[in-house]
Amino acid sequence: MPDITLLECFANPSPQRDYVIEHIAEEFTSVCPKTGQPDFGTVTLRYVPDKLCVELKALKLYYQSFRNEGIFYEAVTNRIADDLTQLMKPRRLVLTTDWKGRGGIRSRITASFGEAPR
Amino acid sequence: MPDITLLECFANPSPQRDYVIEHIAEEFTSVCPKTGQPDFGTVTLRYVPDKLCVELKALKLYYQSFRNEGIFYEAVTNRIADDLTQLMKPRRLVLTTDWKGRGGIRSRITASFGEAPR
Amino acid sequence: MPDITLLECFANPSPQRDYVIEHIAEEFTSVCPKTGQPDFGTVTLRYVPDKLCVELKALKLYYQSFRNEGIFYEAVTNRIADDLTQLMKPRRLVLTTDWKGRGGIRSRITASFGEAPR
Amino acid sequence: MPDITLLECFANPSPQRDYVIEHIAEEFTSVCPKTGQPDFGTVTLRYVPDKLCVELKALKLYYQSFRNEGIFYEAVTNRIADDLTQLMKPRRLVLTTDWKGRGGIRSRITASFGEAPR
Amino acid sequence: MPDITLLECFANPSPQRDYVIEHIAEEFTSVCPKTGQPDFGTVTLRYVPDKLCVELKALKLYYQSFRNEGIFYEAVTNRIADDLTQLMKPRRLVLTTDWKGRGGIRSRITASFGEAPR
Amino acid sequence: MPDITLLECFANPSPQRDYVIEHIAEEFTSVCPKTGQPDFGTVTLRYVPDKLCVELKALKLYYQSFRNEGIFYEAVTNRIADDLTQLMKPRRLVLTTDWKGRGGIRSRITASFGEAPR
Amino acid sequence: MPDITLLECFANPSPQRDYVIEHIAEEFTSVCPKTGQPDFGTVTLRYVPDKLCVELKALKLYYQSFRNEGIFYEAVTNRIADDLTQLMKPRRLVLTTDWKGRGGIRSRITASFGEAPR
Amino acid sequence: MPDITLLECFANPSPQRDYVIEHIAEEFTSVCPKTGQPDFGTVTLRYVPDKLCVELKALKLYYQSFRNEGIFYEAVTNRIADDLTQLMKPRRLVLTTDWKGRGGIRSRITASFGEAPR
Amino acid sequence: MPDITLLECFANPSPQRDYVIEHIAEEFTSVCPKTGQPDFGTVTLRYVPDKLCVELKALKLYYQSFRNEGIFYEAVTNRIADDLTQLMKPRRLVLTTDWKGRGGIRSRITASFGEAPR
Amino acid sequence: MPDITLLECFANPSPQRDYVIEHIAEEFTSVCPKTGQPDFGTVTLRYVPDKLCVELKALKLYYQSFRNEGIFYEAVTNRIADDLTQLMKPRRLVLTTDWKGRGGIRSRITASFGEAPR
Repeated sequence: MPDITLLECFANPSPQRDYVIEHIAEEFTSVCPKTGQPDFGTVTLRYVPDKLCVELKALKLYYQSFRNEGIFYEAVTNRIADDLTQLMKPRRLVLTTDWKGRGGIRSRITASFGEAPR
Repeated sequence: MPDITLLECFANPSPQRDYVIEHIAEEFTSVCPKTGQPDFGTVTLRYVPDKLCVELKALKLYYQSFRNEGIFYEAVTNRIADDLTQLMKPRRLVLTTDWKGRGGIRSRITASFGEAPR
Repeated sequence: MPDITLLECFANPSPQRDYVIEHIAEEFTSVCPKTGQPDFGTVTLRYVPDKLCVELKALKLYYQSFRNEGIFYEAVTNRIADDLTQLMKPRRLVLTTDWKGRGGIRSRITASFGEAPR
Repeated sequence: MPDITLLECFANPSPQRDYVIEHIAEEFTSVCPKTGQPDFGTVTLRYVPDKLCVELKALKLYYQSFRNEGIFYEAVTNRIADDLTQLMKPRRLVLTTDWKGRGGIRSRITASFGEAPR
Repeated sequence: MPDITLLECFANPSPQRDYVIEHIAEEFTSVCPKTGQPDFGTVTLRYVPDKLCVELKALKLYYQSFRNEGIFYEAVTNRIADDLTQLMKPRRLVLTTDWKGRGGIRSRITASFGEAPR
Repeated sequence: MPDITLLECFANPSPQRDYVIEHIAEEFTSVCPKTGQPDFGTVTLRYVPDKLCVELKALKLYYQSFRNEGIFYEAVTNRIADDLTQLMKPRRLVLTTDWKGRGGIRSRITASFGEAPR
Repeated sequence: MPDITLLECFANPSPQRDYVIEHIAEEFTSVCPKTGQPDFGTVTLRYVPDKLCVELKALKLYYQSFRNEGIFYEAVTNRIADDLTQLMKPRRLVLTTDWKGRGGIRSRITASFGEAPR
Repeated sequence: MPDITLLECFANPSPQRDYVIEHIAEEFTSVCPKTGQPDFGTVTLRYVPDKLCVELKALKLYYQSFRNEGIFYEAVTNRIADDLTQLMKPRRLVLTTDWKGRGGIRSRITASFGEAPR
Repeated sequence: MPDITLLECFANPSPQRDYVIEHIAEEFTSVCPKTGQPDFGTVTLRYVPDKLCVELKALKLYYQSFRNEGIFYEAVTNRIADDLTQLMKPRRLVLTTDWKGRGGIRSRITASFGEAPR
Repeated sequence: MPDITLLECFANPSPQRDYVIEHIAEEFTSVCPKTGQPDFGTVTLRYVPDKLCVELKALKLYYQSFRNEGIFYEAVTNRIADDLTQLMKPRRLVLTTDWKGRGGIRSRITASFGEAPR
């Protein structure tokens, strides 16, 4: 079950500067709530930290908590974006999910908070 | 025969946010109305949903309804863009078709509704 | 409906020599007899001609005759290998089909007549 | 829990011929029994059928039954090879697993039954 | 000899919308007027149609009419752009030629009419 | 018109040793005798020289002499192999042609003289 | 231990012009201060010089001085950006680090000084 | 020794239009003045011609005149940009050099005259 | 300092079968004993186990023990091959090291014990 | 001028074992004796050492001594193979040169001493 309490932060070491952090997790899996079939994808987080940065190992465990959750592509994407925005209160954030093909169709969902960092 | 009634929608789970959904269908086929030869291509849909999202399995069946239809590249592209715009009334939409080579020439057609989502 | 009468041959211009001809058709499609869903694949023919070579445009039309046929991967592969072997009576022949993924699994079937040409 | 009863077979349509069937499943996941961390990999099955072929959708469900199983790379590989050999009694079989990196090391395990089909 | 009379048009099926058509011809060849050596390249046409679209087979024959013409890279590029602009009177047009290496140098020439379509 | 007199040789500088020379010409073009359409391909020559080696610029001009010749894939391949074998009397020779797609089918023809050099 | 005194500069040979210098170091390694495990990455420096350019061999030695330093991704990135900005006082500078995966997650950090040079 | 007199121009055939010419020379070599070691790189010239275009074979010979010259990356780049700007007086020009790795660091230098052509 | 005592084994779960285990470590680094410069490479181990398999985390730590060791390419390769052969007494083993370029030259060393597993 | 005295050897650290050493030099250049144009290529050396191994920096300097030498592809290849065989007296040796295209033709020459190491 997705579990926001798994997430942990540390203090941004350079809060005086706008800079971009990107974490690309290529081993994300959840379950389709309609068919019960597993979904596989990549989750890419890009953000400009304010006071807090998300800790990398905690982020991995948080992503793993979706492993047996039945949840649609659009909902996963918005949920992770919302959880991380609420947690870190970043200056800007983009969350993208890339899903392997189902029935010959590949999908990508992108949700942002603030103006997307380039 | 292309059949818009195959399309189905579901309610956008995050209508308060502008976000981008992309579906890439690499197994599209229709028929050239001039030569009767099959055409093969990829159809890429990118849109920012408003109240509705298109359901993925229904989208696949709708694309399959072009399988034995005689229709030109330009017409397919504009028709799918029109059908999906009429159905979902998205905030923005881009529909691209990429066609495998015929006589040594590959083609790509791109039709948009509203400003293209980046 | 697969139609062997579409196939045509021409006389091998160099029958005194063992040489290899390969035709790679990347736009093959048939239908799954169980689900009714379209299958997409690549058909690769490799052979050493004896008295006859298969004509390229006729080969394309023969492949297209599978477009709306419900037939399993294994059966398509063996049928094309059998039809072409019977038609051309080649010295050696290998027929390979490569199928795009279904449910996350890609498949390849290879059937030979005589020792495979390297 | 890995469940061999999920596997189903159908009769080989061309038993008079030695031919090769390959199924590549790129979305395999199990769990490391030591660390509890998920493992992700690709399972490639190649075999020459005798009387029976494994059914593709059943194979997918059998692979999915490893999703929450704690099992080492070497054991997964040998177990799948053994289960499929026992089930189909193929003329020859090769089972390969390719695992994504852990600690900067990627792994591949290959187990065969009979002489490997080329 | 380059022959503009080979070009044919058809009516734009969606003139109410600005959309982009791209044709990529990878088998273009002409002759260097200085050395007499053949040149090989790719010709990419991108345009936003107004009342007319160029017909694909006619475009292929028009490109083939350069086969034995002695003409420099810059001249080919501007000539094709001019011929197609005069013929179709598109809203915007970009013509790019990519030439294989000569003496270790590859070249690309790009000529536009109106603002380049993105 | 293909012209064998364009070919020139020079003495093999190391006739005491079996060694392999490979020349890959990616800009070959001839004409389909049936449709009049240009064909484009790559010609790969591999051989073990005996007393003679083919001169590279002469080889280029010989290949260019096919530019406006109507000739089938199989005939081109065997003819070049025969011309070069007759000219150089090499210890072994392999001639391969790789043709760009026509109607969705790519082709490759391989003719050898003597045992193919590895 | 990271050692800024290893860095050396030379006078910008074209200070009258804004131009961009990029150095891509693909063999960077440091140590994770939490786990003691080595980290491997690529460090990309892009800048517009003012009066000074950094000397390439000195830059390599400076990067090597991080080899056995325990330091987090975010801190390495900001530190190198700060050291080089202080040293060269460039008109603009971007420093990017790309880290190989840990636990299935790859990371990239980008820190800039002034507007990023395109 | 770099020799600007090797450069030759011809009249721009389409001076009424802004268009872009790009020449990519992948076989550039000079010598490091510090170590005496050879440097290898790619030189990319992009420009919008005004009255003159640089002749391709002359450009090749000019580049070859750097073969045994001891000269730093930054100096080569600015020198070629200056020579070509002075010679052709183009509307806009960008000169980029990409250097193979030295000590694990690859470099790219980019100098422009006028606003860079896109 | 390279430390063989870091290596650990576990019992081969399928000793009745000859099968192949491959571990590819892409983050190997040691030091050149002549120049003091760091070397970076990939170490690939392939073996057929007899009674013992090498434990993956222990293998990683053993590889890391070379981090600050001055040792030549040939010596590293033979040493790792010898250590692992002595430890596991495998039926067959191949150890390959691939080194990033130094002075424009990349190297690969391959040492085997017994006949190489295919 | 090619200078064999630049080559140096060191004692093979593991003469009791047959193992393979490969050095790939991607920055080789010489001059065409016919046209005076520079040639660029890659030189790959593979050998099984007996008592001696070639030293890597010396090998680089030896290759550089061809920089301004007018010499044909076939002669370079046989000469380097002969020089290194004479110097090291290896158990087996293969020398391959891969040359960038001239007039649209790329070339590769391979000379061996003893049976080629796999």
